[in-house]
Amino acid sequence: MSPPPAPAPESGPDSARATSGAVATHALRIDAARLAERLRELALVGAIDGGGVCRLALTDADRDARDLVIGWMRDLDMEVRIDAVGNVVATRGGDPALAPVMCGSHIDTVRTGGKYDGNFGVLAGLEVVETLAATRTDTVRPLAVAFFTDEEGARFHPDMLGSLVYAGGMSTETALELRGIDGTRLGDELDRIGYAGSHPCPGPVPYAFVEVHIEQGPVLEAAGITIGAVTGVQGIHWEEITVEGRSAHAGTTPMSMRLDAVHAAAALTMRVREIVETVGGSQVGTVGSFDVHPNLVNVVAARAVITVDLRNTDANELERAIAELGRACTDIERSDSVVITRRVTADFDPVDFDPAMVDRVEGVATTLGLSVQRMPSGAGHDAQMLARVCPAAMIFVPSVAGLSHNVAEHTELDDLEAGANVLLHTMLDLANEAP
Amino acid sequence: MSPPPAPAPESGPDSARATSGAVATHALRIDAARLAERLRELALVGAIDGGGVCRLALTDADRDARDLVIGWMRDLDMEVRIDAVGNVVATRGGDPALAPVMCGSHIDTVRTGGKYDGNFGVLAGLEVVETLAATRTDTVRPLAVAFFTDEEGARFHPDMLGSLVYAGGMSTETALELRGIDGTRLGDELDRIGYAGSHPCPGPVPYAFVEVHIEQGPVLEAAGITIGAVTGVQGIHWEEITVEGRSAHAGTTPMSMRLDAVHAAAALTMRVREIVETVGGSQVGTVGSFDVHPNLVNVVAARAVITVDLRNTDANELERAIAELGRACTDIERSDSVVITRRVTADFDPVDFDPAMVDRVEGVATTLGLSVQRMPSGAGHDAQMLARVCPAAMIFVPSVAGLSHNVAEHTELDDLEAGANVLLHTMLDLANEAP
Repeated sequence: MSPPPAPAPESGPDSARATSGAVATHALRIDAARLAERLRELALVGAIDGGGVCRLALTDADRDARDLVIGWMRDLDMEVRIDAVGNVVATRGGDPALAPVMCGSHIDTVRTGGKYDGNFGVLAGLEVVETLAATRTDTVRPLAVAFFTDEEGARFHPDMLGSLVYAGGMSTETALELRGIDGTRLGDELDRIGYAGSHPCPGPVPYAFVEVHIEQGPVLEAAGITIGAVTGVQGIHWEEITVEGRSAHAGTTPMSMRLDAVHAAAALTMRVREIVETVGGSQVGTVGSFDVHPNLVNVVAARAVITVDLRNTDANELERAIAELGRACTDIERSDSVVITRRVTADFDPVDFDPAMVDRVEGVATTLGLSVQRMPSGAGHDAQMLARVCPAAMIFVPSVAGLSHNVAEHTELDDLEAGANVLLHTMLDLANEAP
Repeated sequence: MSPPPAPAPESGPDSARATSGAVATHALRIDAARLAERLRELALVGAIDGGGVCRLALTDADRDARDLVIGWMRDLDMEVRIDAVGNVVATRGGDPALAPVMCGSHIDTVRTGGKYDGNFGVLAGLEVVETLAATRTDTVRPLAVAFFTDEEGARFHPDMLGSLVYAGGMSTETALELRGIDGTRLGDELDRIGYAGSHPCPGPVPYAFVEVHIEQGPVLEAAGITIGAVTGVQGIHWEEITVEGRSAHAGTTPMSMRLDAVHAAAALTMRVREIVETVGGSQVGTVGSFDVHPNLVNVVAARAVITVDLRNTDANELERAIAELGRACTDIERSDSVVITRRVTADFDPVDFDPAMVDRVEGVATTLGLSVQRMPSGAGHDAQMLARVCPAAMIFVPSVAGLSHNVAEHTELDDLEAGANVLLHTMLDLANEAP
């Protein structure tokens, strides 16, 4: 599984146009209305109040969304392959002996997700394919559009699971045995929704991988820039932390005799914020989930389980934050007389994308007359998993108010159109490079 | 509904014996083995791992326990009446024209409850009745054994709900419309389990009410004392506090732009502990329940709902703690940019029991050769609701390690026996007082 050689830095979009077919490909543009319509239709699957989407991985809603997107892929005469962890890859055109230029993202969402996170990257890929099909434009290499299972990790930890397995970072066997937050087994849920495919993992190595995605943060909007050329992804560390105290009567138990799991978990939540402030720089930290047993008004809690999400673009600083979290647990075990156990559910080092690929995205955006800036990604993405096996890149478009993982997540159609056009020409250039 | 006159303080147990029937009642003792066997059987209904019981009010388990206890009542030829909120009162003997001497407690439990909390008071009452029946001892006044609906308040707030309605402190109509933590309507759940009775509330006013109960705290055990003569009950204030933030991506959202409901609720949890320390004295405070939405590892939470339980024997100090809680909410709204709403779900002033009744319990215990001390109750009990309409008293027995609302809740059989004998003779004395 050695990656193919990275495209030479000097092979920018202009050089690629020379190798394309009869049509003047540099004039090609995607159809924004068609893209918007597919986004609208997909967002109806698992729609929730406020304009958002709840489509946790491998639920019925995820199955319905998969069926819809695969239908569109087949309408475009793409060849659809489903692998053993439910990743879907559809290919079109080019020389089947050559590795495809792949784009893709995911269609699962968090519980209070928006319409664009992931979905935009997949549907922009279909828009690239339809734009080429409509103009009868062929490419030297096949094009592929993928969506990967459980990118959000909101149901099965770790996140970016499908692309991790696709890239050989976790065995299929391990993945199938994972348990979801609802106790279900990943393999059983794949079977249940009919998405346990026959194609093996790790999957075929693409020639290159490009993912267009909403920024999910406020940087581009604040700077008034349309396109982000993503330089890399911050490291991500997730833990599930269990605090064991002792249940007791909330009226009769003196404060000094309490082993209060909620108090200890709240203290740990406050410490996470302090750790973020201490480490500084790009460090962020979140306690997003907090579960208590027995969870009753008049009972000092026996147990609390919280999750901690730590991220940093600097691997050493992330390690420092993780070490500080360990110290916080030790301190609170002592101060609150509780027992704390930690379980790491995701741990990914920061990723730097191939510099030539970053240059390529920046060059395409500039050629298209779009404002562009280089930036790291604050979120994890499937592209960082594909970067393990092939040159990978990401294209960001602005998120209104920086909101994501929120039903109000929004990106203006002009920006979606711009991002999809950068994807189109980045893929076209790559797909027409000489073998 | 004016209470009957309190028994004169000088009418101790010795004076009462003179008015009893042919049998020498002062020699009567309950059967500890029979009591232990009924406790064992009742604890099988809703039994959970570790020897505990989960029998939330008006669940199927509660219905099964009600059926069992009513079966025992009928076996003892008691007349069983069920009222409109599911309180059950069984009477035996005496002159039906006279108000009964009532004992009782509850058979609902918290989610991780023990075998004795409440159940002991009800089954000790049956033991009193069976002891009298076995020796053909009659009383001037009827005896009554009651169990009241939803004393724990673990499913429907407020706690002590059934006895509150029995004593006229809440209308039946209001009670039936209450919603449980699972969203169910109390009236519907009563109907569902077949315990919406025909007898009206408020219920008939007893001549006096006596409740024997495990202490649920460490005081008696630490002092090596068998019987607590309970002087009163601390005031209780419950709130459900909702923190509204904004859901956002845990990786891409700068810390400064977060409206993090979990962080704010954790900060409030820490403030509750600080309030307890500031107010001092008998003040206790607990955050026992903590619910988060969407509750996912990689999403800054949009909403957190916590409960706060504040208790103090001093009404003014309790008011001070409640005011401090309000200040804490205001502070955190400002520091965390969240919106906090408070809903009071229980608010009971401290209660002082009738001094003559406290004297009576202390006198009976002393006469029986048992060590006894006066003490307040840290927990709320049905007796405090009955104290609104008649002279009421409570008898405490030690809790091993002070544990309650815990599956490991335990009281030694000798202590259960001692408490039931104090109940027997306190009731006998009251029931044989001249009309």
